[in-house]
Amino acid sequence: MIEFSRHPASYRHWKLTIEGPVATLAMDVREDGGLFPGYTLKLNSYDLGVDIELYDAVQRLRFEHPEVRAVVIASNKERVFCAGANIAMLGQSSHQQKVDFCKFTNETRNAIEDASRHSGQSYLCAIEGTASGGGYELALATEHIILVDDGFSAVSLPEVALLGVLPGTGGLTRLVDKRRVRRDRADFFCTLSEGIRGKRALEWNLVDEIVPRSKLKDAVARCAAAFAARSDRPADAEGIALTPLTRAVTEDAIAYDHVTVALDRVGACARIHVAAPEEPPPRDAAGIHAQGAAFWPLAVARELDDAILHLRANEPELGTWILTTGGAAELVAAADAALMDNADDWLAREITLYLKRVFKRLDVTSRSLIALIEPGSCFAGTLLELALAADRSYMLDGAFEGDSRPPATLRPGPMNFGPLAMANDLSRIETRFLGEADKVEAVRAALGTDLDAQAADDLGLVTFIPDDIDWHDEVRMAVEARASFSSDALTGMEANLRFAGPETLETKIFGRLSAWQNWIFQRPNAVGEEGALTRFGSGQPARFDKSRV
Amino acid sequence: MIEFSRHPASYRHWKLTIEGPVATLAMDVREDGGLFPGYTLKLNSYDLGVDIELYDAVQRLRFEHPEVRAVVIASNKERVFCAGANIAMLGQSSHQQKVDFCKFTNETRNAIEDASRHSGQSYLCAIEGTASGGGYELALATEHIILVDDGFSAVSLPEVALLGVLPGTGGLTRLVDKRRVRRDRADFFCTLSEGIRGKRALEWNLVDEIVPRSKLKDAVARCAAAFAARSDRPADAEGIALTPLTRAVTEDAIAYDHVTVALDRVGACARIHVAAPEEPPPRDAAGIHAQGAAFWPLAVARELDDAILHLRANEPELGTWILTTGGAAELVAAADAALMDNADDWLAREITLYLKRVFKRLDVTSRSLIALIEPGSCFAGTLLELALAADRSYMLDGAFEGDSRPPATLRPGPMNFGPLAMANDLSRIETRFLGEADKVEAVRAALGTDLDAQAADDLGLVTFIPDDIDWHDEVRMAVEARASFSSDALTGMEANLRFAGPETLETKIFGRLSAWQNWIFQRPNAVGEEGALTRFGSGQPARFDKSRV
Repeated sequence: MIEFSRHPASYRHWKLTIEGPVATLAMDVREDGGLFPGYTLKLNSYDLGVDIELYDAVQRLRFEHPEVRAVVIASNKERVFCAGANIAMLGQSSHQQKVDFCKFTNETRNAIEDASRHSGQSYLCAIEGTASGGGYELALATEHIILVDDGFSAVSLPEVALLGVLPGTGGLTRLVDKRRVRRDRADFFCTLSEGIRGKRALEWNLVDEIVPRSKLKDAVARCAAAFAARSDRPADAEGIALTPLTRAVTEDAIAYDHVTVALDRVGACARIHVAAPEEPPPRDAAGIHAQGAAFWPLAVARELDDAILHLRANEPELGTWILTTGGAAELVAAADAALMDNADDWLAREITLYLKRVFKRLDVTSRSLIALIEPGSCFAGTLLELALAADRSYMLDGAFEGDSRPPATLRPGPMNFGPLAMANDLSRIETRFLGEADKVEAVRAALGTDLDAQAADDLGLVTFIPDDIDWHDEVRMAVEARASFSSDALTGMEANLRFAGPETLETKIFGRLSAWQNWIFQRPNAVGEEGALTRFGSGQPARFDKSRV
Repeated sequence: MIEFSRHPASYRHWKLTIEGPVATLAMDVREDGGLFPGYTLKLNSYDLGVDIELYDAVQRLRFEHPEVRAVVIASNKERVFCAGANIAMLGQSSHQQKVDFCKFTNETRNAIEDASRHSGQSYLCAIEGTASGGGYELALATEHIILVDDGFSAVSLPEVALLGVLPGTGGLTRLVDKRRVRRDRADFFCTLSEGIRGKRALEWNLVDEIVPRSKLKDAVARCAAAFAARSDRPADAEGIALTPLTRAVTEDAIAYDHVTVALDRVGACARIHVAAPEEPPPRDAAGIHAQGAAFWPLAVARELDDAILHLRANEPELGTWILTTGGAAELVAAADAALMDNADDWLAREITLYLKRVFKRLDVTSRSLIALIEPGSCFAGTLLELALAADRSYMLDGAFEGDSRPPATLRPGPMNFGPLAMANDLSRIETRFLGEADKVEAVRAALGTDLDAQAADDLGLVTFIPDDIDWHDEVRMAVEARASFSSDALTGMEANLRFAGPETLETKIFGRLSAWQNWIFQRPNAVGEEGALTRFGSGQPARFDKSRV
């Protein structure tokens, strides 16, 4: 079982140091510290375990260190910044593991950019030695790349030339779309195994600054100070501790405080249930700070995040996730209001941004998502996003026979209109009603209203509203049909239907770049007996089928 | 060898009839008329051969029939519109053939939309019977879909449910991005093998109009008349004949009038040479009409189009295309001027739009493109697009030893600033300098100027400018390196680097949808021994690995 929780005290591969407003995350990968046996993490190459620690650090810096305004990514190794993903690890991984690994690393790079853009915590990168492949891609996720100009230090994307695959962590997209490296230069650069150094790296905008080795420290300090100066993070606030999650994992269930997951191996699905808060939220920022990790929105974000990661990595055969909720809509609405009323508080902002990232993680998850909206459920505000993120939703029209609870309702809230935007920068409601502003406005007019099945259907918020007589058959057939289809066709279909409308760096990375990489990861030229990933390091050259597809 | 030239007189699968401003393209696929042996084209299912005829018809309607303002796509078969791509054909095709087939069908669907949008020749679709898979995707490429409401006629995308693959001809993207079908409804629709009929099809915007069978003819006539009424095509003009191309194919060369291709099987590359016109163009529209298919821009467009299609389908092992040109820049500039000065003439417009489509075809071609700019070459205006479409360009700085010709120059022209836009709706120069308007303007300031290597390099128009001493080694190494890499990694890399900036329906179809389809086409769930494509029609159900990737 792959475990995603970490703590700085037990990091094996990173050194996190904080001096005033500047944190330094220094990579120092333990060669024998691989998550799986069978490979050695030489030259600061990484595997999923190294990246899980990085993700933990990125998260904690935002919540536990409000005073940190600039984060320096560096290396503690001599003459090497980072060699990228470990090739032997990739070579021995299954297709599913490779794809899952790339997805998670992409999400962490996106989280780094999110911190720089939205959280006043800007990342920069100091490269001394070689930054190859995923190493350079990590640098590309920062806002300022400083490269030592010593005739040796270099940035490179050698995947095509050496491995027969693509840079899989956003590299190609970030080159041409983020850094606007000219496409012909990018083409040349991406076919060079040795990469590019010094002045040309700067001229081609592969890096932002080159400095002699003796000036690296100064340059880093100067850039970090500039980033810190423009940040709106509070200097004197206290962070909150991301305390360990309460989680009980059994053979067929995972239970957190607010999130529970039932694992239905026969039905090939997981039932994810999210409970509303049981008490009203604190009214002001001080109260939110006092609750810290126990504050319901943050607790739910962390639990959902962990559940998603756990299921993705450890339960690939549960192909459908059934999303349900329970509790009182007014308490979710109150928690949402606590976040939005205190939007200028750093912690409230962090929690909202985190919720946004968690729902984005759901969007790019290769599982069919079906929301069930029944009596007792609570699809209000933040929790309504679960239904909007679903590929399909069923809402019971009326009550079940013998059930005296009132019929199910949905309650749209302000959180559904922007703060939790998808990777395409639109809210899930805007994406749902692409180019139909009147339909978006009709939902907005129902803000705070409890909508019954008919009203929700009229507004286009749910897919189907069967009554008691049809409910069980319709839902059963939907779940069974899903389980009967090709898992790959479903993944491709969902990846295409979920993101209508504008494309962004993020949607391009997950939709275009990852899809091509998935394709290449399956090809004999990469993973066949004589393929480049298979033969890498064997002393034998790869042999390719030259035919273009 | 797959041959792409066709003529209406010998169509086997389509009946083209023209009545005044309305053309009808009726599908009537000959069951025994497959391009390859081994399958029967039942129920108006199609293979590449059927689609090549469709492409021919779409082209000829634009050039040979200026009077046609509306094109009706219909079926001559009883109770079936079109069953989509033939599954037995897909099942027996190689991966390369499947991908190439999808690319070509996509390009033809895009050409249909291009005609509707830019050429005053709008397509509509009349569906009586079932339109399944690629059949419905063909309908989606038209601007108005009329479905007979008879309790039987239906539209469907049954690929996921029946075949374990995606609708591969833009269906998913057109559903949510073009027709704005709500994503949850699209999800449901795309998992139904039987599709959706009548009122629900209309409510969900899967079609634009439903009519009783008895009213179909009227509805089609009404819509065609409305399309015709809004068209700006001339009523009284005469079309020009797309006469057969002069083409000589030998073992190692293809020669047209203006385009020649040398096939270097040892070096795994094709050298495509395009010659400038040898005489000044006609000055006015009448002169262009008089030249017809012999007018240089149209002749070059047709020859390049055929060469690209030929090489893609028949020479997959020639992984690099080296693009060269020759002749007088002023004659290309004059031909460009003839097109642009007569931009309001229907034929000049058609030729420019066709050139645009040909360069787009180059952009989505899975071959490395290297432009060589040498003394005697002619990268001016329209032909400069070849260098801008290339992944990389080399321009000789100075002369070769013993060569008395003047050094090579480039000449930007107005054609490089909009008329030949890429699929992302930007010119290749705008894409090249994404977000750097000043660099675009600097090139614009050089309009009509012959730029030597240094000047072209300063403006960022070429990748490298080696001199005589370095030229041969640099070019040789670039071509050799390309041939040594994994063909798949190159394809993925090029597909990602070529389209920076905004995404459109077209870039999504080629970049996102096709990439996922390519991936799925490789997966055991589709093409393994027990895969859905393999088992389709065998009477045995497919068996899937349920694990999600």
